Amino acid sequence: MLKIGVLGSGKGSNFQSIYDAIAAGLLDAEIRCVAADVPDAYILERARKLGVPAGFIDCAPFKTKIEGDGAQRMLDFLADHDVDFVALAGFMRIVKEPLLSAFPERMVNIHPALLPAFPGLESWKQALDYGAKLAGCTVHFIDAGMDTGPIIVQRAVAVHDDDTAETLHARIQIEEHIAYPEALRLIADGRVSVVGRRVRIAAHPPA
Amino acid sequence: MLKIGVLGSGKGSNFQSIYDAIAAGLLDAEIRCVAADVPDAYILERARKLGVPAGFIDCAPFKTKIEGDGAQRMLDFLADHDVDFVALAGFMRIVKEPLLSAFPERMVNIHPALLPAFPGLESWKQALDYGAKLAGCTVHFIDAGMDTGPIIVQRAVAVHDDDTAETLHARIQIEEHIAYPEALRLIADGRVSVVGRRVRIAAHPPA
Repeated sequence: MLKIGVLGSGKGSNFQSIYDAIAAGLLDAEIRCVAADVPDAYILERARKLGVPAGFIDCAPFKTKIEGDGAQRMLDFLADHDVDFVALAGFMRIVKEPLLSAFPERMVNIHPALLPAFPGLESWKQALDYGAKLAGCTVHFIDAGMDTGPIIVQRAVAVHDDDTAETLHARIQIEEHIAYPEALRLIADGRVSVVGRRVRIAAHPPA
Repeated sequence: MLKIGVLGSGKGSNFQSIYDAIAAGLLDAEIRCVAADVPDAYILERARKLGVPAGFIDCAPFKTKIEGDGAQRMLDFLADHDVDFVALAGFMRIVKEPLLSAFPERMVNIHPALLPAFPGLESWKQALDYGAKLAGCTVHFIDAGMDTGPIIVQRAVAVHDDDTAETLHARIQIEEHIAYPEALRLIADGRVSVVGRRVRIAAHPPA
């Protein structure tokens, strides 16, 4: 069973989708805690309402990465809650040491684009501005780069002529809420292995 | 009715798919001629067998672009065959002047990836090496960049764990042979307009 720590900065809708998949018996995991780098992030309130331990982790002095003392505070928080797997869900910082190496092949993220297209911020807006006809989302392992780690699951979303950034983002999020529990289930079932940059998905759990 | 000139360098399977769509009455167009930059490209033989005028266009001294005298020779060949629309189909050169500006919003290409991911050569192999879970193809207008023009149609293809470059390429080509006639039909029906980088597809042909 995965003992998951969820890291977020915002509303926490992906946290909710993971929580719901567990509650529905679709995913053999437990969310042990939720950590946010923003003190009033709604993900913290959402977690507390569901009875999940939740804490603010101060990542100062950095604004766009978690590194050094802040990363150590995060590690301590995760250890306090007996976490063995980390799921980033709208966590708006690049992961640096000592957090980066603490969960080898046990730390994943979801990104609202078909990577390697449109890494970085507001990727749904990037896709719209580029004129892409397919957008989507990607669940991937964390590595040292920005949105560059080995890919576990991708789901495509059609871009409509009348899409705004908001409507496209909303449709991508619907797919995120399918893709993230699906990727975690594959991992929880022991079906995922990383070979170089490629993620292999076994047809069945190991015997 | 589109009066199409097809430019290729290889086997010409996309030429065949366009030809077949026209023959089946699905696309209001005529392929007026096929031009290749490789004298023994099979696309030329394939065209001649189908009764389509076909010619080798010498693009020397350049190896990776069509520019200057070679581009003028191509323009003359297309003019001789009364072409008003150009479809690149496996044409392995960057389009430069005077060809580039001769068919504004009337020159398209198909690329075997979900652009902007994996531009350039052997993009199916790039996708496989990257570990993408979704590959695909893109029909786009030609602009001055490499595989950067406004996108008309994209189709996704799942990457399988046991895919080789060959099997993935073959599955992408199946989608190409759907996407290219589809994009040309949208254009032939007058439903396509370019607004900045975005291609709008009207729900119906103009009245």
